[in-house]
Amino acid sequence: MKKNINIAVVGLGQIGIYLLNELNNKKKEIELKTGKTITVVAVSAKNRNKKRKFKFDKKIFFENPLTIFKHQKIDILFEAIGLSDGISKKVVETALKNKIHVITPNKALISKHGNYLAKLAEDNKVNLEFEASVAGGIPILRSIKEGLATNKINKVYGILNGTSNYILSEMENLNDSFSNVLKKAQALGYAEPGNPKLDLNGFDAFAKVRILSSLAFNTKISKYKCLMEGIENIELKDIEIANQLNLRVKLLGISELINNKLFETVHPCLVSKKSYIGNVNGVMNAVILEGKPVGESVLQGEGAGPGPTSSSLLSDLLSILRGNIKKPFGVANSKLKKIKHYNVNNYVNSLYLRFEVKDKPGVLSKITNRLAKFRISIKQLIQTPDKKNNKATIVIITHKTTEQNSTNCLSIFKKDKNILQSPKLIRLYN
Amino acid sequence: MKKNINIAVVGLGQIGIYLLNELNNKKKEIELKTGKTITVVAVSAKNRNKKRKFKFDKKIFFENPLTIFKHQKIDILFEAIGLSDGISKKVVETALKNKIHVITPNKALISKHGNYLAKLAEDNKVNLEFEASVAGGIPILRSIKEGLATNKINKVYGILNGTSNYILSEMENLNDSFSNVLKKAQALGYAEPGNPKLDLNGFDAFAKVRILSSLAFNTKISKYKCLMEGIENIELKDIEIANQLNLRVKLLGISELINNKLFETVHPCLVSKKSYIGNVNGVMNAVILEGKPVGESVLQGEGAGPGPTSSSLLSDLLSILRGNIKKPFGVANSKLKKIKHYNVNNYVNSLYLRFEVKDKPGVLSKITNRLAKFRISIKQLIQTPDKKNNKATIVIITHKTTEQNSTNCLSIFKKDKNILQSPKLIRLYN
Repeated sequence: MKKNINIAVVGLGQIGIYLLNELNNKKKEIELKTGKTITVVAVSAKNRNKKRKFKFDKKIFFENPLTIFKHQKIDILFEAIGLSDGISKKVVETALKNKIHVITPNKALISKHGNYLAKLAEDNKVNLEFEASVAGGIPILRSIKEGLATNKINKVYGILNGTSNYILSEMENLNDSFSNVLKKAQALGYAEPGNPKLDLNGFDAFAKVRILSSLAFNTKISKYKCLMEGIENIELKDIEIANQLNLRVKLLGISELINNKLFETVHPCLVSKKSYIGNVNGVMNAVILEGKPVGESVLQGEGAGPGPTSSSLLSDLLSILRGNIKKPFGVANSKLKKIKHYNVNNYVNSLYLRFEVKDKPGVLSKITNRLAKFRISIKQLIQTPDKKNNKATIVIITHKTTEQNSTNCLSIFKKDKNILQSPKLIRLYN
Repeated sequence: MKKNINIAVVGLGQIGIYLLNELNNKKKEIELKTGKTITVVAVSAKNRNKKRKFKFDKKIFFENPLTIFKHQKIDILFEAIGLSDGISKKVVETALKNKIHVITPNKALISKHGNYLAKLAEDNKVNLEFEASVAGGIPILRSIKEGLATNKINKVYGILNGTSNYILSEMENLNDSFSNVLKKAQALGYAEPGNPKLDLNGFDAFAKVRILSSLAFNTKISKYKCLMEGIENIELKDIEIANQLNLRVKLLGISELINNKLFETVHPCLVSKKSYIGNVNGVMNAVILEGKPVGESVLQGEGAGPGPTSSSLLSDLLSILRGNIKKPFGVANSKLKKIKHYNVNNYVNSLYLRFEVKDKPGVLSKITNRLAKFRISIKQLIQTPDKKNNKATIVIITHKTTEQNSTNCLSIFKKDKNILQSPKLIRLYN
């Protein structure tokens, strides 16, 4: 690789502009660590004049990122637009085809088109790096590809969405509702002001799970949509009850090999307050990995925001500048295996069930009878009357049962007029 | 790099023999991930016929590791003898001079001769890799050199000695004495049967601190012996009292820049039972790193034993096989800075002080008066009488004071006949 490296940054949102500032501030350190000098020769964004946190040289601004390739000689391109398709995909494709290394934090793009783009990078003998796409500043992808490379990984899971974790933590801390805390998160920049849906419905965490699975198990990125639930239906009441039970609600992303089949899921879990994962709070992310022979490894750090994201983007840059041409997914794309999916019906958990019921004789016994009919046995039951409104809250912690069984059992309750809303289900993480 | 790679393993203790077995078992996976085939062509140990956990091919055995170089063409050598000098140093030197890549878990060697050996490796354009020398299976060195490469690191600290952490945890769990738990640790293979001293007096953790400092701050490895204390003087009584105070004793290694000066230390700390670090128990290690812009990053995993160590040794192997020629300390040896040391006298902590005294009037006031004279103010005081023996235990938690002040103050107590043993001091970690 030559000594002087030309860089383009496409997308100047929160992350792009922070990255640009870091690239300008850390030239000397980058030269010290790699022997290369970098120059940003092109930037691109929708709006040239939008108010941004840091200034940039308007002379190298391009409105259409696809025109950069004609006007400038680029060696490395950062894609920070963030779409799963459209212009994001087009820019990355064009760069790779032009033998330009690409670095991106775009989990939507990688989880959808990662295999295709990896092949394109390999064919053109350039790097496609995406450390920042999973768990912000935590070097988890590099750790799987390199630091733990020869371990047989069986499971990788954790808290992968900082926005959701922040909201759950703050609901507990402030004793406040989901919608109020969401507003606060949006004001602080933790949740998208316009559309926080992808954070809250589990989609964002699921994209990260897909990328982690592929790296951990050397498999093609799965397209199979297994069990995906976000935190959008968690009520303050559930957090309060969990608290009384010494539990805490966490949104976990889980990827696991069960009988050599891939099981990927994202859903809220009740975890012990005493557990490690139960104490990863606020915008922190944590990834736990079970490997042989290394045992259990834990990596924790800030999972979102331009600082941690830039830390990972620059680590990708250094890797390229040091001349490490690597397979994007650790092994050649052609060697990635296709893998069968574990049937979610067989997924087994203890359940937290909350029923809001009319306070009438026989309601409780109807519930317990139905659970018994489906062989769901009860570990703990708490009934709290609300005399004033002639209602009661029944919380049941069950012994372990399959997903199929609980779905079938709970569907029946929906028809019962004495049960005032759909029973709330949160799985316990063992 | 050519396709077929010859490997030598020198040292067939617990780690060497496990590594050898892993190398034999993971050939296919290594080929998948690197495109290279490996062959172990030489092994060496003191005793050919010692009983070992795994078998090896005696035909490639060499009694004197220095003769390997004459008889076999070696590309990569693993040094797993573990001495800071002598044959360990000689073998590594000889290998590097012969343009053979070296991988070692030997923290004693690297913390003492790392800069010299790194220069030797750089001059000969080969790798010297030592991921396994710090925190076992945790890919902490690689994370600092690569995953977090452009962060400005201010502090790195953690639990770096699995043996000490195991002993402290078990003293609490089993309510048993230091010496009994040490025997158990030795029986389980966590502590050296012969000489566990280097684990228990803090030396092992200090060697790791030195390596971490160098990587985190891009400085030459320090030779300065700052404050080093192990766990050998921790008594069950201190653990019990800590427990009552909702604290836990942990041996921490700390490396920090204070006013641009390097402060390195290893000593037992009292940490909150609710803190993250207070819940890293047993043989687990944890490293916490404070960097900008990444924020606080935590890496946790098994810190000792042949499994985790082999995981790191093989990650080094893959790095070399993938053709990543890298500076052993992240930047060229000539670019590593020398750095001044922070004066330990200015180190500030709250203190736990335990006095065993004669139960006589005036003893307590003498202690508190002396503390007052040194302007050490008291935050909490617990006096527990032992009427039967006419003794009392006085535990004092102080507000923050300097190391110099506490040393001067405590030295006086040693002369007091009413104070029955040297006051016990454990620093509180803020």
